[in-house]
Amino acid sequence: MKRSFIEVPVASHFPIQNLPYGIFSKQDGKKRIGVAIGEYVLDLSALQEEGILEGSYFQSDSLNAFIATGRSEWWKVRAVLQELLDENSTQLRDNQKLRDSVIVPQKNVSMHLPVSIGDYTDFYSSKEHATNVGTMFRDPNNALLPNWVHIPVAYHGRASSVVVSGTSVRRPCGQTKADEAELPSFGPCRLMDFELEMGCIVGKENSLGEPVPVEQAHEHVFGMVLVNDWSARDIQKWEYVPLGPFLAKNLATSISPWVVTLEALEECRVAGPKQDPEPLPYLKQNGEWAFDIELEVKLKTERMGEYSSIAKSNFKYMYWSICQQLAHHTSNGCNLRVGDLLASGTISGPTPETYGSLLELTWRGTKPIQLSSGEERKFLQDGDSLLLTGSSVRDGYTIGFGEVEGTILPPLIDEKLLVER
Amino acid sequence: MKRSFIEVPVASHFPIQNLPYGIFSKQDGKKRIGVAIGEYVLDLSALQEEGILEGSYFQSDSLNAFIATGRSEWWKVRAVLQELLDENSTQLRDNQKLRDSVIVPQKNVSMHLPVSIGDYTDFYSSKEHATNVGTMFRDPNNALLPNWVHIPVAYHGRASSVVVSGTSVRRPCGQTKADEAELPSFGPCRLMDFELEMGCIVGKENSLGEPVPVEQAHEHVFGMVLVNDWSARDIQKWEYVPLGPFLAKNLATSISPWVVTLEALEECRVAGPKQDPEPLPYLKQNGEWAFDIELEVKLKTERMGEYSSIAKSNFKYMYWSICQQLAHHTSNGCNLRVGDLLASGTISGPTPETYGSLLELTWRGTKPIQLSSGEERKFLQDGDSLLLTGSSVRDGYTIGFGEVEGTILPPLIDEKLLVER
Repeated sequence: MKRSFIEVPVASHFPIQNLPYGIFSKQDGKKRIGVAIGEYVLDLSALQEEGILEGSYFQSDSLNAFIATGRSEWWKVRAVLQELLDENSTQLRDNQKLRDSVIVPQKNVSMHLPVSIGDYTDFYSSKEHATNVGTMFRDPNNALLPNWVHIPVAYHGRASSVVVSGTSVRRPCGQTKADEAELPSFGPCRLMDFELEMGCIVGKENSLGEPVPVEQAHEHVFGMVLVNDWSARDIQKWEYVPLGPFLAKNLATSISPWVVTLEALEECRVAGPKQDPEPLPYLKQNGEWAFDIELEVKLKTERMGEYSSIAKSNFKYMYWSICQQLAHHTSNGCNLRVGDLLASGTISGPTPETYGSLLELTWRGTKPIQLSSGEERKFLQDGDSLLLTGSSVRDGYTIGFGEVEGTILPPLIDEKLLVER
Repeated sequence: MKRSFIEVPVASHFPIQNLPYGIFSKQDGKKRIGVAIGEYVLDLSALQEEGILEGSYFQSDSLNAFIATGRSEWWKVRAVLQELLDENSTQLRDNQKLRDSVIVPQKNVSMHLPVSIGDYTDFYSSKEHATNVGTMFRDPNNALLPNWVHIPVAYHGRASSVVVSGTSVRRPCGQTKADEAELPSFGPCRLMDFELEMGCIVGKENSLGEPVPVEQAHEHVFGMVLVNDWSARDIQKWEYVPLGPFLAKNLATSISPWVVTLEALEECRVAGPKQDPEPLPYLKQNGEWAFDIELEVKLKTERMGEYSSIAKSNFKYMYWSICQQLAHHTSNGCNLRVGDLLASGTISGPTPETYGSLLELTWRGTKPIQLSSGEERKFLQDGDSLLLTGSSVRDGYTIGFGEVEGTILPPLIDEKLLVER
């Protein structure tokens, strides 16, 4: 098994088999491209300055220019880095001065948004999630809408408010209407929620008007991240008919800083759920395109010293594959650009402990979660921190995504604007 | 009345009182900022090279950097240009060499997308349009949904597929389901439509988490454009519940190349429709913030030599003002960025000839439009061209938007993927 001379703890998400890309800065604040290895970052901008890598894009403040170089370049760089970090390779291992200049402890750097996101699309591809929502809000006997099994349903989210892990999220104010009220109110969201998702980073554009066939779709994906699609459920309920969620979602979406490449995920691929009815030909796909990635959701209140697990799921539960999502998205000729984010939608599994949102975990707040501090939660309170993590344990190492974390800040309130009913 | 020494035809959209901004290129293909005056473009990049304007951003391929300089800079540049073009000002008027270098006939230039659009939001702010749609698709007796009179309803559109006037639009393929069919089909859209809209270009960002009060909202708008939100009605019908329109809309959205500033539109402001019920405090606004802009829709089939008018409307019919839209959009802290596009939604007036889409003009295809060629149209056919124009006739001159035009190209068909039922 391939190993690095850099010590990688057994449980680390970042062995030499992974090498996810991110944007980091040191004390000088200058953003640049790095790759995670164990508890370190390998500084690709420094490697370029040293003449070991070619390409000025490693000095960039986003991965976009590097990603735009294309798959053969991604493969070439990955091969160079795996060789450079290999336990038997002397070039970097035995050159302390070079090591000092290109290897930085992760604890000494700040991570930034890895890509400049042109458009952010959010799918709705977990059958269990769609069924849970349909059961709660519509009809338990007809929980799935008729189009769901034919279409990888999606909508456009907000690119400007996608933030990197560690960014605090302010509880939004908004319009809501109580069922029994005649008129709407305006004030702080009362039903603040998270959504456990993963997202693809687009790696290759298609021209406007030119669909990407499903069998080529994977060539248009650079890699994946963890996504927390923060959701204001009470705002959502009042606003979303007929044009879909808007302010309930665009308050913030958090993503993990490291983009795990599709190549690193190659051996995590597994068969997805059986699709019945059979997809239309433009969505019909050969090969196994689900991914066995174990996901966990952890919560920490202000009174708790450490995170406590509240849900465990797996990305392999997704009904629609990332290839089907991308083929559907471009089937009308819609152009995707390098750096676009295609999120999966909430990932819920078959059993209650695998649900990917508080809405489902507490079943609309009717079954509060009991925390180790003795507190309980129906939805998120101010000061609560939420952490998502994901990884795939392979034979002797782990391909991981690190984490995406965020803390709820109290709302900004302008008393003159509040209306309670 | 202020006049320019450059001859401006009486009906021209671009007198010295307007001076809209755009991105143009000459034969060398280099993009730069220009201002429309009569049938000419004033080349601001050349004015900067001549030392008459300061700011390297006039050499840019988008207006974003100029817009980001802020309102006081916009005003300063406008004052410089109005002085420079004034009939009594000699600096440019009497310097033929300078005129040759900074004034270009519009017919000799190519126009480009004026801004780099970070996010595109589409509102749904015409009460008449929402009522027509509700009457056709839901319940004529309860045509407006309960939230509509309280919320400037909106959803996120696709930024990547916003194109400039003159760009042809390919008829999309997509999934549809006939009412009587058990299963969906896949093939070319059969109900291709336009939507007559206007859009604001955001001029000032707000930070994530910080709402813009309604009384300050106008300070966050740089200017406006015409928008055609192309719509595939059959795809929309099958896909849009519950998350809103997606592939039905993101195939393309066309905008006019000239951005008319809010300052140029100052005297076009009029009172909007009475709002009943009264808006919530965060949406309550003083002053007149509707705009009297006459709009016209023209259609030309392949057999017709020239365009024929099919609808006339007015932007003043909009129920929700651009300030209310922007205040609502940011009320949850959502951050807008310079260059973002906030479109109005279809602008329909009170009578059938003022409707802003074929869906409404032909009442779902039940009342086809008769054209001068003897042809009729329910929806758009391949080869049809659609043109929107808008202007406000003032005392002695016209503040206009030029036009936004597009032609429907036949679909790209992959026979293997077609499914008809």
